[in-house]
This record gives sequence, C-alpha cells and structure tokens, in this order.
Amino acid sequence: MNPNKLKRIKIQPRTGNVGDRPGMIRVPEGALKPHIKIYSYNNTELVKAEGEDLSTVFNQLKECGEHTHWIKINGLGDDKLIEEIGERLSINELVLEDIMNTHQRPKFDEYGEFVFGTSRLITCDDNCVITNSQFSVIVKDNMVISFEETYEENFEGLEKRLNTPKSPIRNLGPGYVCYALFDTIIDWYFVALNQIGGQLEDIEERIYQNAERSVMFDTQHLKRTLILLRRASWPERDKINDMIRTESTLINKETKTYLRDAYDHCVQIIDLIESYKEISATNIDLYLSMVSNRMNEIMKVLTIISVIFIPLTFVAGVYGMNFAPADPLTNRPLPANMPELYEPHGYVYCVGIMVLVGLLQLLFFWRKGWFTRL
Amino acid sequence: MNPNKLKRIKIQPRTGNVGDRPGMIRVPEGALKPHIKIYSYNNTELVKAEGEDLSTVFNQLKECGEHTHWIKINGLGDDKLIEEIGERLSINELVLEDIMNTHQRPKFDEYGEFVFGTSRLITCDDNCVITNSQFSVIVKDNMVISFEETYEENFEGLEKRLNTPKSPIRNLGPGYVCYALFDTIIDWYFVALNQIGGQLEDIEERIYQNAERSVMFDTQHLKRTLILLRRASWPERDKINDMIRTESTLINKETKTYLRDAYDHCVQIIDLIESYKEISATNIDLYLSMVSNRMNEIMKVLTIISVIFIPLTFVAGVYGMNFAPADPLTNRPLPANMPELYEPHGYVYCVGIMVLVGLLQLLFFWRKGWFTRL
Amino acid sequence: MNPNKLKRIKIQPRTGNVGDRPGMIRVPEGALKPHIKIYSYNNTELVKAEGEDLSTVFNQLKECGEHTHWIKINGLGDDKLIEEIGERLSINELVLEDIMNTHQRPKFDEYGEFVFGTSRLITCDDNCVITNSQFSVIVKDNMVISFEETYEENFEGLEKRLNTPKSPIRNLGPGYVCYALFDTIIDWYFVALNQIGGQLEDIEERIYQNAERSVMFDTQHLKRTLILLRRASWPERDKINDMIRTESTLINKETKTYLRDAYDHCVQIIDLIESYKEISATNIDLYLSMVSNRMNEIMKVLTIISVIFIPLTFVAGVYGMNFAPADPLTNRPLPANMPELYEPHGYVYCVGIMVLVGLLQLLFFWRKGWFTRL
Amino acid sequence: MNPNKLKRIKIQPRTGNVGDRPGMIRVPEGALKPHIKIYSYNNTELVKAEGEDLSTVFNQLKECGEHTHWIKINGLGDDKLIEEIGERLSINELVLEDIMNTHQRPKFDEYGEFVFGTSRLITCDDNCVITNSQFSVIVKDNMVISFEETYEENFEGLEKRLNTPKSPIRNLGPGYVCYALFDTIIDWYFVALNQIGGQLEDIEERIYQNAERSVMFDTQHLKRTLILLRRASWPERDKINDMIRTESTLINKETKTYLRDAYDHCVQIIDLIESYKEISATNIDLYLSMVSNRMNEIMKVLTIISVIFIPLTFVAGVYGMNFAPADPLTNRPLPANMPELYEPHGYVYCVGIMVLVGLLQLLFFWRKGWFTRL
Amino acid sequence: MNPNKLKRIKIQPRTGNVGDRPGMIRVPEGALKPHIKIYSYNNTELVKAEGEDLSTVFNQLKECGEHTHWIKINGLGDDKLIEEIGERLSINELVLEDIMNTHQRPKFDEYGEFVFGTSRLITCDDNCVITNSQFSVIVKDNMVISFEETYEENFEGLEKRLNTPKSPIRNLGPGYVCYALFDTIIDWYFVALNQIGGQLEDIEERIYQNAERSVMFDTQHLKRTLILLRRASWPERDKINDMIRTESTLINKETKTYLRDAYDHCVQIIDLIESYKEISATNIDLYLSMVSNRMNEIMKVLTIISVIFIPLTFVAGVYGMNFAPADPLTNRPLPANMPELYEPHGYVYCVGIMVLVGLLQLLFFWRKGWFTRL
Repeated sequence: MNPNKLKRIKIQPRTGNVGDRPGMIRVPEGALKPHIKIYSYNNTELVKAEGEDLSTVFNQLKECGEHTHWIKINGLGDDKLIEEIGERLSINELVLEDIMNTHQRPKFDEYGEFVFGTSRLITCDDNCVITNSQFSVIVKDNMVISFEETYEENFEGLEKRLNTPKSPIRNLGPGYVCYALFDTIIDWYFVALNQIGGQLEDIEERIYQNAERSVMFDTQHLKRTLILLRRASWPERDKINDMIRTESTLINKETKTYLRDAYDHCVQIIDLIESYKEISATNIDLYLSMVSNRMNEIMKVLTIISVIFIPLTFVAGVYGMNFAPADPLTNRPLPANMPELYEPHGYVYCVGIMVLVGLLQLLFFWRKGWFTRL
Repeated sequence: MNPNKLKRIKIQPRTGNVGDRPGMIRVPEGALKPHIKIYSYNNTELVKAEGEDLSTVFNQLKECGEHTHWIKINGLGDDKLIEEIGERLSINELVLEDIMNTHQRPKFDEYGEFVFGTSRLITCDDNCVITNSQFSVIVKDNMVISFEETYEENFEGLEKRLNTPKSPIRNLGPGYVCYALFDTIIDWYFVALNQIGGQLEDIEERIYQNAERSVMFDTQHLKRTLILLRRASWPERDKINDMIRTESTLINKETKTYLRDAYDHCVQIIDLIESYKEISATNIDLYLSMVSNRMNEIMKVLTIISVIFIPLTFVAGVYGMNFAPADPLTNRPLPANMPELYEPHGYVYCVGIMVLVGLLQLLFFWRKGWFTRL
Repeated sequence: MNPNKLKRIKIQPRTGNVGDRPGMIRVPEGALKPHIKIYSYNNTELVKAEGEDLSTVFNQLKECGEHTHWIKINGLGDDKLIEEIGERLSINELVLEDIMNTHQRPKFDEYGEFVFGTSRLITCDDNCVITNSQFSVIVKDNMVISFEETYEENFEGLEKRLNTPKSPIRNLGPGYVCYALFDTIIDWYFVALNQIGGQLEDIEERIYQNAERSVMFDTQHLKRTLILLRRASWPERDKINDMIRTESTLINKETKTYLRDAYDHCVQIIDLIESYKEISATNIDLYLSMVSNRMNEIMKVLTIISVIFIPLTFVAGVYGMNFAPADPLTNRPLPANMPELYEPHGYVYCVGIMVLVGLLQLLFFWRKGWFTRL
Repeated sequence: MNPNKLKRIKIQPRTGNVGDRPGMIRVPEGALKPHIKIYSYNNTELVKAEGEDLSTVFNQLKECGEHTHWIKINGLGDDKLIEEIGERLSINELVLEDIMNTHQRPKFDEYGEFVFGTSRLITCDDNCVITNSQFSVIVKDNMVISFEETYEENFEGLEKRLNTPKSPIRNLGPGYVCYALFDTIIDWYFVALNQIGGQLEDIEERIYQNAERSVMFDTQHLKRTLILLRRASWPERDKINDMIRTESTLINKETKTYLRDAYDHCVQIIDLIESYKEISATNIDLYLSMVSNRMNEIMKVLTIISVIFIPLTFVAGVYGMNFAPADPLTNRPLPANMPELYEPHGYVYCVGIMVLVGLLQLLFFWRKGWFTRL
Repeated sequence: MNPNKLKRIKIQPRTGNVGDRPGMIRVPEGALKPHIKIYSYNNTELVKAEGEDLSTVFNQLKECGEHTHWIKINGLGDDKLIEEIGERLSINELVLEDIMNTHQRPKFDEYGEFVFGTSRLITCDDNCVITNSQFSVIVKDNMVISFEETYEENFEGLEKRLNTPKSPIRNLGPGYVCYALFDTIIDWYFVALNQIGGQLEDIEERIYQNAERSVMFDTQHLKRTLILLRRASWPERDKINDMIRTESTLINKETKTYLRDAYDHCVQIIDLIESYKEISATNIDLYLSMVSNRMNEIMKVLTIISVIFIPLTFVAGVYGMNFAPADPLTNRPLPANMPELYEPHGYVYCVGIMVLVGLLQLLFFWRKGWFTRL
C-alpha cells in the first residue's frame, strides 16, 4: 500500500454542472460554517469583534463609520451569508461565485468600486502535510473582506502587527492590508519550499546510502507538490503584477512599492520551484542509475560464480559417467572406456585441471575489470 | 488485443481532395440527417418549433419577426439544407464549408453582418467514453444558428434556462446565447477533466498495489485524450479572447464581462491539462520503476538461489566421480584416487563443508544488503 | 538490412561552393529537362499551349496580350532557359538562384514589379512514398510563372477548375492563381498527414498484438517524415501570413480572404504534426514497455524453472556421491558414510523431500504474485 | 557515503517567518562580524582606512568631503551597523532587508537618490569548491557601498587598479566602480565555468576508459552547479540590461559602454551554461549506454558459457545414471538398460558427441555475431 | 580509449584573469605570427601587397589614397601590431580586446566612424575535421580589415572574385566586402552540415546493419559538433539582422538586399541544425532499442536452453543417486530403493520421459512466440 496515500495532493478541476447559469452560488462540498472576525481601526484605535453571523459586522460598520475595517471570514459553508454580503456591499455575483468555487486560479479583477483578488493558500505544517485551500479578498474604499476555507490561524503574524498603532498596516489603507495578506501567503510558499528543499536533500542522502524504492515514491510526491506550487505561483506572479499596474486608486503608490517587493519574492519562488524540479529529475536519474548498477552487480556475482563452476561441474559430471571398464556379463575388458578413472593419479590430475580452469577464468574476469569495477 | 480499442480516440486531418475549389460543401462521412429546433423569444414570450426541414424555421421567422431566434440544427447530413441556409441568410460559402468540414480548429471569424465561431464539443459519458464532435455557431442581428454533429442533448441546461423569462439569456441578445453555448462546451471540458483526474488517481493506486501492464495502456489512452483536449482548448482560449476583443456590435459589452469569466475557465482547463500531462508522465516513470524493481527482485532470487547451490552441486559432482580405488583388471590399489571417499567420516566432513560454504554465501549477500533491500 | 532504405527521406543542406558569388545559377544535380505549358485566359476564352522551349511562351504572350497567363514549367534542367526568363521578364538574379537551388525554405519576397514565393511540394502516393521537391512561383501584373522539379501532375484539380469560365480562378487575377497553387500544396500536406495518421494507428495495433522490432523502424521513419513536414509547414505558415500582410497590389483583397482560409489550414497542419509527434513518442514508450515486459516474462520463466530445480538437482547430486560404505581394501565398514543410502525407504523419503521443496517454492512464487502477473 | 557530500551545493529559499513585517532586518545565520574598508580617492589622491565599526567611515567621509568613496563591508553579522548605515545615508529599509536576506536574486533597483544592485558572488577555488554568497552594492552621488558575506579577497584585482591614478576607475565616478564590481563577479563566473568545462572533459575521458559509478555522482554534482549558475546568470543579465537602460544619472554614458561589454559576457556565460548542460546530458547518456553495454557483455559471457555446458552436462548426467545392467538380486541381465555403457568405444563416441555439440553451438554464436560484437 | 579523442571539439569560456581591466589586450595562447595581405582596388585597378609588418599596409594606404582597401591579417600573435592598428586607425580598445579574445560570440557593433563584426569561422576539411576559429572584421569609410586566427585559405573564392573588374565586390564599397566575408563563413557552415548529414546517414546505416558501440561515440561527437554550430549560428543570425537594421551608412542599401539573402541562409542553417539534432536523438533511440533487442535475444537463447535442460539434468541426477538395492553389510534387499533402476526397460522409459518433457517445453515456448519473435 502506498504510505503517502493519506496526504496525497489532489489536483482538481472546478466543480459545477454542465450548462449552469454563470454567477450561480454553490456551497463547496464539506465547507465549514463561517466564523467572522472584524477589526476596525484608525491611527489611534483598534476595535475587534467576533461572531457567527453578519449582524456583528454590520453593527460595527455603523458604530465605527470612520474607521478602516478588515472583515475576516473563515469557512464558506453558508450561501445565504455570502449572498447577503453581495447585496449589502453590492458585490457582483460573478465575484461571489468565484469566492465559493474553491478551485480558482490566482487572479486580480477590478470592478468600479471594489477590486477582487484570489490566491491559493498553500500551507505546510511541521510534518510537511501540505494544505491547499482558497483565499479571496475584496478591497473596498474603507474595508477589506477576506475569505478563507479553513479555521487555521494562517495570518497570526499579521493580526499581531495590527496591534502596533504606528505600523504601516494601520496607516496605509485597505490596499496595504490586501498586500500584507498576499505577502503572508507568499511567505507560506517559502515555508513549503523550505520543507521541500530539506526533503530533497534527505532523499539524495538516502539514494547515496541505500537506494530504496521509497525514494521513488517520495520523489513523486514532491514532484506533485511542486506541480501544485507551480500551478499556484505563476498566476500569483501575474496577479501581483496586475496589482502593480492597476489604475484603481484602492492600491496606492506606497503599497505598490511593497508589491514590487512581493513580486520579487514571487519570481524567487518560481525560480526555486524550477530548480527543485530539476533536482528532482536529477535525483530520479541518480536513483535509477543506482538501481541499474545494483542490478549489474547482482548479474556480475551470478555470472562469475556460474561461469566458474559450470565447466567444473561438467568435468565432474564426465567423470561421474558409468562407462564400464568391463562388460558386466562377459567381463571382457573395455580398455577404451574412461581409462583416466583407473590411472594411479587420475583424480589428482583431474582436480589440478579444475583448479587451473577456475584460475584462468578468474584471470579472464580480472582482466575484464569485473572485480575492480564493482 | 487492446481492450481500449473500441474507444480509441482518433486525431484526424481534415478531409477533401487535393486541388478542390475552396468553399466546396461535402457531406461528412456518416453524417446524420438534420433535425431542426427553433426557439423564438422575447422578454415575455417563448415559442418553440421542431422539424426536419427549413420550412419550419422560415415560417416561424416570419411569424415572430420581432423575436430573437435560436435555430438549433443537429446532424449535418444534408448539403442542400446547408446551402439553402447559406442563400437565404446570405452566409459566405467558406463559412458553410467550415461548418461541413468537421475537423476544424476552434476559431472566431467576423464577417460584416454576422460572426462565426466553431468549437470542439468534447463530451464524456459516465463510462468515460469521450466523444469529439464539431460545434459551429453563426450569430446574426436577431438570431443564433448552431450546428451539431450528433443528436445528443448536450445543451439541456441551457434550454431550461431559456424558460425563465427574466434570465440574462432572454435579455442580453444573440451574442449572449452564443456565449452561453461556448460556456456550456467549456463546462463539458471540466466534466472530461474530472473523469481523467479520477482515472489518474485510480491508475496511481493500481501502480502502488500491483503494477500491471494495463497501467501502461490506460495511461497512453489518457495521454491521447489529453492531447485531444489540449489541441481543442488552446485555440478555444484564443477564440474566446478574439470574441472579447471583437469590435462587432453582435457581442455586446455585458456579454464580454461574461466572456472574461469563460476565458478564465479556459485558462484553468489548459492549466489542468498541463498538470495532468505531467502527472501522467510521473505515473509512467513510477510504473517503469516498479517494473524494473520487480525485475531486480526476480534476478535477486535467481541469483541467491543459483549462487548458493552452484558450488555445492559442484562439490557433490566431484564426489560423484568414479575414480577407482583399485584397477578393475589387476585390483592393484590406486590410493591417490579420491581417498576422501574411504575416510570413516568423509561424508560428514563433506556435508559440513557444504553447510559452511552456504552460510558464508548467505553472510556475503546479507552484508551486501540483498535481503533487506527486497 | 533496413527495409525502409529505399524510401528514406533525406534532409539536406543547400548546395554550392564556398565563396560563390550570390546570384550564381547552377543546374541542380539530376534535374529534368524543362517542359513548358502556358494557359492564357480571360473571362470568356482559354488558350493552351505546350512545348520544350520558350518560343511557345513568348509567341502566346504576344498573341494574347490582354489575357492573364499561367506559365507552368516542369523540370529545372536548363540554366539558359531560366536566364532567358530572367532577362526577358526582368527578374532579379537572386530570385533565379533561389528557383534553381532546390533546398529553399518556404518564403515570400516582394520586389517592385513582381512577387516571388517558394514552397516545399510534399506529395505522397498510395504506397506512402513521400516526395519532397521545390515549388516556386513568380507573380507579375498579368501572369503567373510556376516552377516544379518533377513532371508529376500535382495540380490536376487546378487545371480542371481553369476550364470553368465563371470560376473565381478565371476572374480574380494572377494573385488568386498563386493562392490556388499554394492551397493545393497545403492539400497535399493533408494527404501526407492522412497517410501518417493511418500508419500510426496501424503501428499502435501492431504494438498491442505483437511488439516486433519493425515497429521501431517504422516509427523512426514516420518521425523523420514528420520532421520534414514540420520543417516545411512552419515557414509555409509564415509565408501565407506575409502574403496576407503584403501591401503589393498583386495580391488583391478578395484573394486575401481566401489566404486567411489557407492560413487556418496551415495552423491545422502544424497542430496535427505536433499531435502526431506526441503520439509517435507515446507509441515508442509503449513499444519499449512491451519489450521490457516480455523480457520480464522471459526472466520469470527462467527464474521459476531454475530456482525450482537447482536445489533439487543439488539433493540428487548429494546422493550421487560415492562415499563408500566400506573401505575397498580392508572391507572395514564405514557406517558414517551416507547411511541414508542404505535405509530401507531412503529413496522414498528423498523423493518426498524433493517434492516438498518444489511445492514450497511454488507457494513462495505464488505468494509473490509471479504467476498471476504474467 | 557520498564523497561529494561536504561540498554539496544547496539551493535554498529565503528565510524569515510567515507574516513578518516587510523591511524587517535579521542577521543571517552564521554571519561574520563586519570588517570595513574605505577607499577615498580623486584624480590624484587615494586614502585608505580600515576598521571594525562605522566611526572609521564617517570620519573619513568628513575629512575627504570632495573625494569619491568606496566603502567595502565584509561580513553581515551586525544588524545595528546596517541600521546605522540606513539612517545616516537615508537608505530605504526594504533595501536594508534585501542586503541582509542573503538569498536574493540578482536585481537592480532605482531609488531617487541612490541605486541598489545585488548579485550572486559565485567563486571557485583551485579544488573546484564552489562558494555561493551574496554581494550587494549601493551607489550614491559620491560613494559606493559594497556588502559581502565573507572575508575572501574576491576583488583584489580591482583594488590594485585603484592604485593607478589615471585609470578609468579613478575618473569615471561611482557608477563605474559599481560596473567594475559586477564585471569582476562575471569574471568569477568564467572561472567557475572553466573548471566545470575541465571537469566535463575529465568525466568524458573517464567514461571512455572505465565507466565507474562515480561518473554519475560527479555529473550530478556538476549539473547542480550549473543549475546554480543558471539561476544566478539569467537575472544577472537582466540586471545589467536594467543598468544599461536606467535613466538614473548615477550610471553615466561612458559606464554604459562598458556595461554593454559586461552584457555580452553575461550572454556568453548563459550560452556556455546551456552548452555545458547539454554536454552533461550527453555524458550521462554515454555513461548509461556504456553500463548497459557492459551488462550485455556480462550476459553474453554468461550465456555462451552456460549454453555450451548445459547440454554437455546433461549428457554427462545421463551416462551417470545407475540403470543396472542386471537385476541385483537375481543377476538376470537387463540388456535394454544403457547398453551404450558397455560398448567397447562408448566413452569415445560420447566425448566425440560432446565436442561436436560444443562446436556447433560455438558456430551458432559466431554466426549470430556474439564474438565480434563484444 | 576514445578514438575520437584527437578531434574532440572543445567548448571553452573566454580567458583572462578575474578583475582584469576591460580593454586589456592579451595574445591568445598558441597564436600565430601575423601575416598581412592588402588588396587596394577601384573600378579599374587592383593592387596587391603582402608582408609581415604594418609598414606594407601604411605605404600602400598612402600610395592608393583613392582606392578601397581590404587588409587581411592572418594570425593574432603580435599584440604590438594590434595596438598599432588601434592607434593609427583610432579603433576603440574594447574592440581590440574582442579581436584578441578568441572566444567571442558573433556580434555586430557600431561605433561612430567604423563598424565591427565578429563570427565563428567553422571550417571542415574532407576528413570531417572541424576547426573552430574566430573571424573579426572592421569596416571603415574606405577600408575593410579582417582578422583570422589561422593561415588557412578560407576565402579563396572571394579573392578570385576580386580579380573581376565589374563584379559587385569591386563596386559596392567596403560594406559589400564585409557581407561577402560573412556570406563565405555561412557557406562554410553548409559544408560542415553537409558532412554531418552524410555521417548521420552513415551512422543510421550502421545501426541497421550492426549496432556497434562506436555508433554511440560517433553520435555523441556529432551532437557536440551540432551544439557548437548552434552556439555559433543563432547569434550569427542576430548579427546579420543587426546589420540589415543598422543606420550606419557603411552598410548601403544594395548590400542590405544581399544581407537579406544571407539572413535566409542563416535561418536555413538553424533549421537544419535542429533537424539534425532530432535525427541524432532518433538514432540514439534506435541504437538503444537495437541493443536492448539484442539483449533480449541473448536472454531468450539462454532461457530456452537452460529451461529445457535443467529439468532433464535433474532427472538424470535422480537416477544417478546411489540408493542401494541392498544393504552393503548384510546384503538384505532394500526393494523400495529406486526399483526403476532394475526394471528391464527403466532406461528406455526414462529417456522417453526426458524427450517428452523437452518437447512439451518447446511447445510452450513456441506458443509464447519466443521463436518467431526473434
């Protein structure tokens, strides 16, 4: 059985039925019940609230009308809630569909009053279990709404930075929050790549020491992870680039400087993925060559032993033949039948010849280099 | 025999004779008799009609002069009918040829008063039998004419949506109908990819459990399907892009928003196909490595058993030689001939040596790791 | 010997000596004596003439001064004739060199008063023998001059279409004739691809039924043909594109509509070639995997039989040893020497043990799945 | 154990924690204590100073206010120092982060008052030990600040050239110094490539002479080095190109002429890397083919010897059977039991037949070409 | 030992030390002493001179002030001479460095008063020995200076054409001479490709007839030559393109027409190289498949013979066992011990069973198709 089965990464097409109306909202299979946090802040103040329905959000939006808000929704299991957000904040239904259809490619779309971005959120825990979920964000004039599939605390660092009053995140508007979210996602890619890098080295070590079959399985697993990461990172780069080039005022000039930094990181990630893919291929070549070398070694042992003993066994067989020295009925001597057997030193000569043949063969193999090349 | 033979996918060039006049209409081999449906609708009313010849169509066109019409033709087996459509609706003969030559690449062409698009309609039933037929559509001022090769109900979802009076399909003009048709075709691609994804996982499972030769056949079959899908999806994407960029008023601005959504789906399809191709390649590598591992295992068993017994058999052969202890004629003793045989414990020593040699060899193999690495 | 040797396709560089003056005209090796046809036509009249020298041509050019002419030259074996054409019709000598140097890449060049195009004419007879020759065409104000290397009737269809007075070929000027010639060449590519497609399917069938070595040879042959076709079709596409974009009035607007059609066909050809190359690679993978499977099968049979009998033969060898039950000279009994041989049921036990060992081994192989996985 | 283990080249992602604030400065793991040199020069004078803290630098900056300065910092182990530089010379904190995060891709960024460039400094000592560290440089109006990770004297040549009063480096401003630094880095690439080229030839020689397994390891090691170099050289080229196209006045026109030369060198490096990669692949193919040839040779020896002796041993075995010439109890003769054994010349005929069989087999192998094709 | 060793093609990086001043002139290792020719010509007159130092040149430049000059320098072994040319004709020192550093990529650079071009001069003698040297050319107002590394007469054809007064080379200025030189270099590429094409066919023939190991070596040698040619031809094409697009008046409009012809030839060369590379790969696949087929054949022979005789030998071994018919001491009969041996027709039955087993096995192999598929 495949030991990696449980953590096998699936690469899946988007779901939905043939001929569905565009903009149709479907709750993804197995989606979690939404959990909502809202952070409202300005230069001096930070108000937090948490809840299971939108009333929490809309109350706070009213109360802190002048603040900037980050509404963080974890879990997409409630289509009503998504539709309500769509209506209240006038979000296009194609966008809502994209949020709920959790197999999107990373992209950045501009709509008059808001911008919409989506990313693959690929996290990696200490046991190197990769999780591939969808992250979407809507940026409006004074608010950012982020949607995650899981309850994992993937943006803890960011939430901490919100506590510092003078940090850029408190001062550079909702576009910066959006940048910071995507930047964190990119940081997660580095975490995954770091693990992959470590595993590649580990695999290489195992190849040199003991080329087991599991090397192949593990490399295939890594390759699949790299395919996943590449599928996510190329459009991620394009998305960041689109954000840098956008004319929307929601992404201001200072934020764009930071986005250029994120863009560099994306390019680095793509670079690393390509290098790791090459190293994977290299490892497989190495593994196969080790396996084939081992096969050669086995063959060589088989050949040397067989080839030495086969002629000797033949000689022994010949002198084991029962050609009779005399007719059993008449006792007439048959002197042509194996006279060697009746020589005083026949056995000694025979053994001598065998030793000689064996030595000659060893010499032949040694000359061919079959011993030194093991 | 190849078990996949019946559903083998053919990739075929276009037909026709060398030096044929461009615009020559030929009925494709095995084409079905046309079956015609016409839907005439406006915001409030929907009139349907069905028939085998064009009179149904032209009657309804006259009766419902202010409606928008969708004329759906299934089966291309009648060149007269196509020519009549060409004449009555003044369609260029090169377009008619493209409709009838069922090996087109997806494309979108603009002609003054109408636009023409063609797609590969790749459907996939529950047994994963892929069907690759051609779908063409002509969009005019107040009508859409679609041409399919088969009678399959591939656009059921769309026909249902037509029943809802206020849906976009009733309000956004013939360009939207054209979009909806192509969008449905793209949905069909996802269905096929979904099946392929499932099969790839299934194949991988089979490789880990029992690397049979059928894995190779099935993977080749999938690869061929992926080649087909890629050949269809790249130009499909370009086609959608051409439609987004067209200056023709037949594709209005609202429809273009939807087309951008379809474009994203196309890109996703291409992405998936490339990923699936990589996974296919990966599976084949894995399969070959499993096969070669099994070969190694077989060789190892052969080698261990042979190499252990060959020297022992030689020893047994030696002591089976008949060098005589005495001359058979004179009975003169020949004490140099195999005195071991006449030792009181010769046999015991001999067996002891054999056991020793066998154990030493086992030790050698164990040191080489031939047991643990099975 | 290679059975495909006779029809092996050569991919050759252009000929000529180092340091030759550009514009030097050389008769290609083995070139045929020119045979000249001239078709002079207008809307109502078609005059044909045929001959071996240019006087035929120039007479008719004079007589039918108002007609459009198609001068069709088969065979390039006469440099004087080419030079005379050059002088009389004022054709650049670099163009004449290109016509005579029969290893050109397809291209389209504009010169003030004429345009020049060249193509690879790749034909394919019913036995799938590919012929790769050069086709060049010069288009002037009121005439088209085409040059072919062979006497084959590759443009029969076209010559027939010339007989119909109202066909486009009679009305759309020399540019259309040029288009029609290139379109016919493209049709020939489809013929070749059709044959290749059939052969690929045939090869695949043979792989499944009986993976013979000839599969490899035939696939390599196909691959070479595909390399040839690809080398021809990519620049062919560029050439057609250049013709569509030309500002020369020799290619008029109506012809360009038809050229766009030819362009689509070119793209289709390139697509098919790439798909066929992938299928070729796939077939080779399949073939190699079949060969390696067969090797495994052979090894398995060898291993099972050897491994079962080797220990048994060893046992038989042991009991064939001649350790004596008594000293031959003194007749002193040696009871430790192979007492088994003198047991009343020694032989029965021995055979029983052999059967047991054999069965245990079969069980071991069965558990390893060596029987079911054949 | 892998003999290359110690010098294995790591390809690592950048470090840092998920969700870190951009611009956060972290001392890289194992970073060395900074060592600072400052060169202040004008056309006529050159002042040098050296020290462990920044006071040396700022003193000299004050003293030689009209000079151009090159501040060379080796070792990044002190974040305070970097922060102080940032504050005193007003360097953006994103730039400071890039300097300290030692896994940057080569890039060139312009900021109003300064430009920033970073490179991979890949050096190679005589034992072909590759070192991959980061080199960063900031160019301001009258100064260049360079940051290296190690204490190695990688720019000795450049420091010597500074001593010559009329050399371009003394006259063409800080931009030229920056160019000269990058040019030296590019020279280091040539050193590494020179070593790789030598090793590739060495490996090839070893393949022809004695295809040992270490060939595979060494080629993989080279491949990894080439992956590293390629990862560094492509963005290096882009960086140089960005410098050529910059509008910043810090890089003047004369320097750009030199940069074009450096650009050519970069392209040459990329070219060489690609060629070397191809040669690597070629070497691996050759090695694998040698290994498989050797395997074939071993198999051939095994087969020839086995196949010759197996039937002979069988014959010997047959005549070693003990079918009795007479019933042991009744002494009734059993004349059908192996009468050959009691023929006067049975043994001679038997040996004759064995020799014949052996010769026939040798003939068969000779006809198959198994001897000549070794 | 590698038989191709002597003509192995090296792909080398440029030389020089780390940190060298740009523009430093170094005599390449093993460079020849310069030999100088000067051709001064106008429409009517051609003056030749030859010598070892520059005085010859400068004398003639003075004497024939109105002529166009072609100064042809063979051998780069004298840095003084190059420096003198630089000073007298005011050539930039970076250009002089490029001339002397003989590992340049082909390129074309414009400097105010002169243009500079460099190419790889890849010649090929009748024994297919490839020589890769550098060719540089400087074009000034009324002169062309060409630099070659060797004394070979690579431009004989060109020198002959200079003798014809009315040829274009005498009339179209120094730019045309430069074109003619590069065109000759391109002709040399065709010579090399012609040889490679012939060798590829030869190799293919050898694969079909007798797949020897040398096939692999020779193909690798060709591949390396193709890598070299590709490295030279791609930038050669770019160089020609740069010359076509230059605004420098040194390359006049008529010359550009000829350059377009040269450009076409370059594209053809690149095309051919790619095709030849594919054919090389195809040949290696074919070779490996032949080798593996031969291996299979060997295995099949081994298996058939072994598997037939192993059970038979076992049977012979069984009946060679010495289970006694009677206790040797007491002479008590042991009737259960191998009674077959004392059957009147035991031997006949035994041989019959052996023959039967052998035939059954042959039948089994025949059914598996092991005979027909050889």
